[in-house]
Amino acid sequence: MQQINQQRLLGWIDELGQIGAIDGGGVCRLALSDEDKAGRDYVVGLMKSLGLEVKIDRIGNVLGLREGQEDLPPVMTGSHIDTVRTGGRYDGNLGVLAGLEVIATLNDLGIQSKRPLGVAFFTNEEGSRFAPDMMGSLVFQGDLALETALAVRGIDGTTVQENLQRIGYAGDWISEGQLVPTAFVELHIEQGPVLEEETITIGAVQSVQGISWTEYTFKGVSNHAGTTPMRLRHDAGYAACQVASFLRALAEKVGDDQVATVGRMEFKPNLVNVIANHAVFTVDLRNTDNEKLKFSEQQTLSFINELCEKEGLECSSKTLARFDPVIFNDVLVNRIESFAKELGHSVKRMPSGAGHDAQMLARMCPSSMIFIPSKAGISHNVKEYSSPEHIEAGANILLNLLMELAQA
Amino acid sequence: MQQINQQRLLGWIDELGQIGAIDGGGVCRLALSDEDKAGRDYVVGLMKSLGLEVKIDRIGNVLGLREGQEDLPPVMTGSHIDTVRTGGRYDGNLGVLAGLEVIATLNDLGIQSKRPLGVAFFTNEEGSRFAPDMMGSLVFQGDLALETALAVRGIDGTTVQENLQRIGYAGDWISEGQLVPTAFVELHIEQGPVLEEETITIGAVQSVQGISWTEYTFKGVSNHAGTTPMRLRHDAGYAACQVASFLRALAEKVGDDQVATVGRMEFKPNLVNVIANHAVFTVDLRNTDNEKLKFSEQQTLSFINELCEKEGLECSSKTLARFDPVIFNDVLVNRIESFAKELGHSVKRMPSGAGHDAQMLARMCPSSMIFIPSKAGISHNVKEYSSPEHIEAGANILLNLLMELAQA
Repeated sequence: MQQINQQRLLGWIDELGQIGAIDGGGVCRLALSDEDKAGRDYVVGLMKSLGLEVKIDRIGNVLGLREGQEDLPPVMTGSHIDTVRTGGRYDGNLGVLAGLEVIATLNDLGIQSKRPLGVAFFTNEEGSRFAPDMMGSLVFQGDLALETALAVRGIDGTTVQENLQRIGYAGDWISEGQLVPTAFVELHIEQGPVLEEETITIGAVQSVQGISWTEYTFKGVSNHAGTTPMRLRHDAGYAACQVASFLRALAEKVGDDQVATVGRMEFKPNLVNVIANHAVFTVDLRNTDNEKLKFSEQQTLSFINELCEKEGLECSSKTLARFDPVIFNDVLVNRIESFAKELGHSVKRMPSGAGHDAQMLARMCPSSMIFIPSKAGISHNVKEYSSPEHIEAGANILLNLLMELAQA
Repeated sequence: MQQINQQRLLGWIDELGQIGAIDGGGVCRLALSDEDKAGRDYVVGLMKSLGLEVKIDRIGNVLGLREGQEDLPPVMTGSHIDTVRTGGRYDGNLGVLAGLEVIATLNDLGIQSKRPLGVAFFTNEEGSRFAPDMMGSLVFQGDLALETALAVRGIDGTTVQENLQRIGYAGDWISEGQLVPTAFVELHIEQGPVLEEETITIGAVQSVQGISWTEYTFKGVSNHAGTTPMRLRHDAGYAACQVASFLRALAEKVGDDQVATVGRMEFKPNLVNVIANHAVFTVDLRNTDNEKLKFSEQQTLSFINELCEKEGLECSSKTLARFDPVIFNDVLVNRIESFAKELGHSVKRMPSGAGHDAQMLARMCPSSMIFIPSKAGISHNVKEYSSPEHIEAGANILLNLLMELAQA
C-alpha cells in the first residue's frame, strides 16, 4: 500500500482555506465570484506545478490531466472548490486537493500509470449563487445544455457566462459528454453524523439518496383563538404541524434509510390569539430506494389530502425538486471497502444524503465516493471539521484505488 | 315587554361608524387618538341630547347618568368605543349606543326608574395602542392604580396622560372604586361563530374564559436534512409541531369548553433542507373552569418536558398572559335567558372567549353580558357584521333587564 503525504495535503487545505476566509475558520467562495477566481488560480497553479496539463471547458470546469503510458480514457477524481456563503474548508476542497496529493505522490514515486489520471474541479457545485447545483458536472456529463447553463442568472442578476468571462474561466475545451472517464472516484467529507457516531473512519458510498422536495400551502380561516370552539376551526397551522408529526411516524415505518424533514414553516397572521389561516411549509423526503421514496411521497400526499378534507382547508403544492436515487458502481464500492480494510480502517457501506458531482459522473462512467467523518456531522458551516488522521485515511484509499484503476 | 327603536339605534351605529371610517366598512379609532376624540365627542353629544349628566373620570372613562327617583347606586351598562387598527363598527360601539337607546326609549316612555341608570364607555378596552387592554374599566373598578395607567407609554411612545390631556378627556371625577353600581350588564357582539352556527339569537354570557398564554422556545441542532438519520436528530421544528398536535388531543380530552391554539410558529434557519435548531411558538389555552385550565396547563408542560427530554432539546418558556376565568352573576344570566324567551328569541348560556369590560365590573358588582351573533364569527376586522334583527333583539333584552334592575 502506498501512502500520501499528510503534511503536504493539510498545507494545501490550509492555503486554499485562506482564500475567501471568513470569521470562525470558514470560507466564502461563491461560484464564479472574485474569491472563487482566486481559489481557482491557486489550484490551477498547483496543477501546473505538479506537471499536469490544465484544460478549462466552456462552463469553467477545470481538469488537470496526467499523461498515461497509453492513450486511454483517464481515470478521474475531483470535486469542487466553490462554497456556500458561510462554508467550511473541507467540503469539496478536500476531494480536489486529495486528488492533487495523489498526483504528487505518484510524482514522488516516479510512477507513470497505464491510463491517464485526471483531477477536476467542477463549476458551481453548491448552487448557492446559480441554480441548479452540480451545474458544472451536469454540463460535463452532457445532460444540461451548455447554453442553458451559461444563461442562468444568479442571485445578483448576472449570468454564469458574464461571470465566467469576468474571472477568465470561460474556456474553449469542448468537454460536454465528449470525455468519458474510465471511472470516477470522489473523496468527500460525510457532512452527516453517522461515521462519527459509529466511530467508523471510512464510508464506502454506494448510493446517493433520491430527493423529493415539496412546498405546501394550507389555507384555512383566521378566527379568534378564544371564541372559536375547536370543532368550528379551520386551522391551517395545526394541520401543517400534523404533517410534521406524520412524517416522523412515516420515516419510522418505511425504515432506516428514509429521512423526512419539515425544515421551513410559516404561519399567517402568526399571532398568539389568532387561528392561522395560512401555513406554508416544506417536506423534504429522501431515500436511496426509489420505490420507497415514491411510497413515502404517496403516503404523505394521501395523509395531506385526508387531513385537509377533514379540517376544511384548501391545499396547494409545488414541487421544488425531485431527483431519483443514484446507485454507485458496486465494484468500486467493494474496492473502497477492501482498501479501507487493508489499510486498517473501519469501513461502512452507506448512502450519501447530500448531492455530489460524482452522481452526475455516475451517469456516464463507473463512479463511487469515499466518505470520511465530519465532526458532529456539521457542514455548510464555518465549524466544519475533519481530522488530519481521517483526511489521511481517505486520501490513502483514493491513492491506492486510483492507482489500481489506472493500471487496469 | 318594551321595545327599543331599531332605526334610531342603527342610525347612531352608522353615524359613529363614519368617524375614523376605513376602507371596507371598518373603523380605526385607536384609544385616545384624534379619531377616538371625535367618536367620544359624538357620543357625549348624544348623552347630552338625551338629558344625561356626563361625568368624565381621571382615566377618561365617560359615564352618562340618568337620575332615578331615589339616590341609590346606579344600574349600569356600557362598553367601549375605541377599536383595533382595522376594526369593525359593532365591537364595543353596539354596547354603548344600545345603552343610550335604552335611555332614549325610557325618555320616550316618560319612565323615571327608581334607581339611576348609567351608560359608560371605558377608555382603551382594546389595548391596541396602550397595554393592558380593559384599562379604563380596570381603573374604574380600582385594581389598576390610576397613576400606573396614566404613565403607560403607547406604541408611539406617548403616555396615556399626555393623550388624555391632548384630546381633552382628562376628567376630574374620582371614580376609582368609588362608584359601585347596583349591577352591570353589557351588550356585545359574540366575536365568535357559535351563535350563528347553531342559529341562536341570544347568548346569555355566564363566564369569561380564563386565559393562559405561553411562549416556548425549543433549541435543538441544525443539521443536514439528507445526511442526518432520524434517530440522530434534535429537531426543534418537529417537536414544536408535536405540541400543536398534542393540544388538539388535549382539548378533546378536557372537553367542550377547552380551546387550545398554536397561533405563532417560527423556525430557524427555516430552510427546506436544514433541520430547524430553533422553534419559537405560542400556546393559547382558555377555559371557563380554572381547575380545567390549570389541568391543561400542567398536561401541556408535562408533555413538553418529556418531549424535549426525548428529543434532546433545550426548552425555555415565558408567560405572556394569565387570567383566571370570570364567573358572571347567575341571577343576571337567568334573567337574560328569561327575557330572551319572553321576547321570542332562541337563547344559549355560553362563555365569552374574549375579554370585556364587564369582567372587570364583575369584580365589584353583579354583572353579565348579552351576546348577539357575529356573521361568520368575524371580528376585529372590517367585515365584522351583525344583523339589524339581532341588534334589535339584544337591545330589547338590555332594555327590559335594565328597567327591571332599576326598579328593584
